[in-house]
Amino acid sequence: MDITKFVEMSLGHWKSQRSAHHLAFRHFEEITSEIEITPLEKDHPEVIKLCQSYQIDPDLITHPFAMSWEGESDWDEKEILKGSTILIPIPDPDNASKGRLLRDQGYAETIPSVGQYYFTEDGTFVLLTEYDRATAEEKIWFASPNIRFRVSLIKTSSGSGVVTASFSSEIRALS
Amino acid sequence: MDITKFVEMSLGHWKSQRSAHHLAFRHFEEITSEIEITPLEKDHPEVIKLCQSYQIDPDLITHPFAMSWEGESDWDEKEILKGSTILIPIPDPDNASKGRLLRDQGYAETIPSVGQYYFTEDGTFVLLTEYDRATAEEKIWFASPNIRFRVSLIKTSSGSGVVTASFSSEIRALS
Repeated sequence: MDITKFVEMSLGHWKSQRSAHHLAFRHFEEITSEIEITPLEKDHPEVIKLCQSYQIDPDLITHPFAMSWEGESDWDEKEILKGSTILIPIPDPDNASKGRLLRDQGYAETIPSVGQYYFTEDGTFVLLTEYDRATAEEKIWFASPNIRFRVSLIKTSSGSGVVTASFSSEIRALS
Repeated sequence: MDITKFVEMSLGHWKSQRSAHHLAFRHFEEITSEIEITPLEKDHPEVIKLCQSYQIDPDLITHPFAMSWEGESDWDEKEILKGSTILIPIPDPDNASKGRLLRDQGYAETIPSVGQYYFTEDGTFVLLTEYDRATAEEKIWFASPNIRFRVSLIKTSSGSGVVTASFSSEIRALS
């Protein structure tokens, strides 16, 4: 697995079931959402802008994409969870199985972030992102071309404790 | 990571939060349970018996252990989920990072099973078990010595479709 294949497999429309475990309270949260992942051109203005803000040479990037989601949680059924973000992979020139990922909105905090990714030998994409007050670890893998799983851990910034663990099952919407 | 270290890290009492995603129905199930993992002697009568039933030389096994659990699901709050099983690792003599795992009660079907395990380079234990009508894939890893995560997938025996995906957060009970 490499980032080109991973992004290409991820493109499309997904129906997601996500369970979040708030560990300190043994609380369960259930989120259903729809996710859309679309490719972007390397010279898309938002891509150029994000590269500039991190002083990244646009020649180093590959397969930028946009992800948008809309869903609801059983914690607050009146609130619609909705958002979108742009992601830009920057593969390591010396090792195709790792690199950096720029994001214009982070997962744990809604500020731009840059994470470190790598692929394990069984094809799992692992992304580590450090924020000011938290560290996020995401693992994403495909069980088949139409089923994707994602585990996200939010840890305190010291790295010692996991605050929230969540698991998503994502099924490709064939429509 | 190898099976010795993995079993030693797993011993103890754990509080588990498990979410099951029944994918065809987009249904969520929430299970809370307590899990106890205790070491067994290699010459424990139940260990010898399970080895005999698979015609395994007891000299090849290592670190047998018992796992028991008790909990409840939000699907049927009156029912107490309770059970126990014996597990026996048989490391590959030529490769410490893989082997077989005997179990006197399987996860997908309550009959004895033998699965194939391996460790990925980031320390995840991966177990594949084939049953008559289903295939189970489990991934277990530690975020810290006191936090363990487990993803279990039940696939149809053809291997094409995932029927149920579940995610457990297990916190060591320090008491």
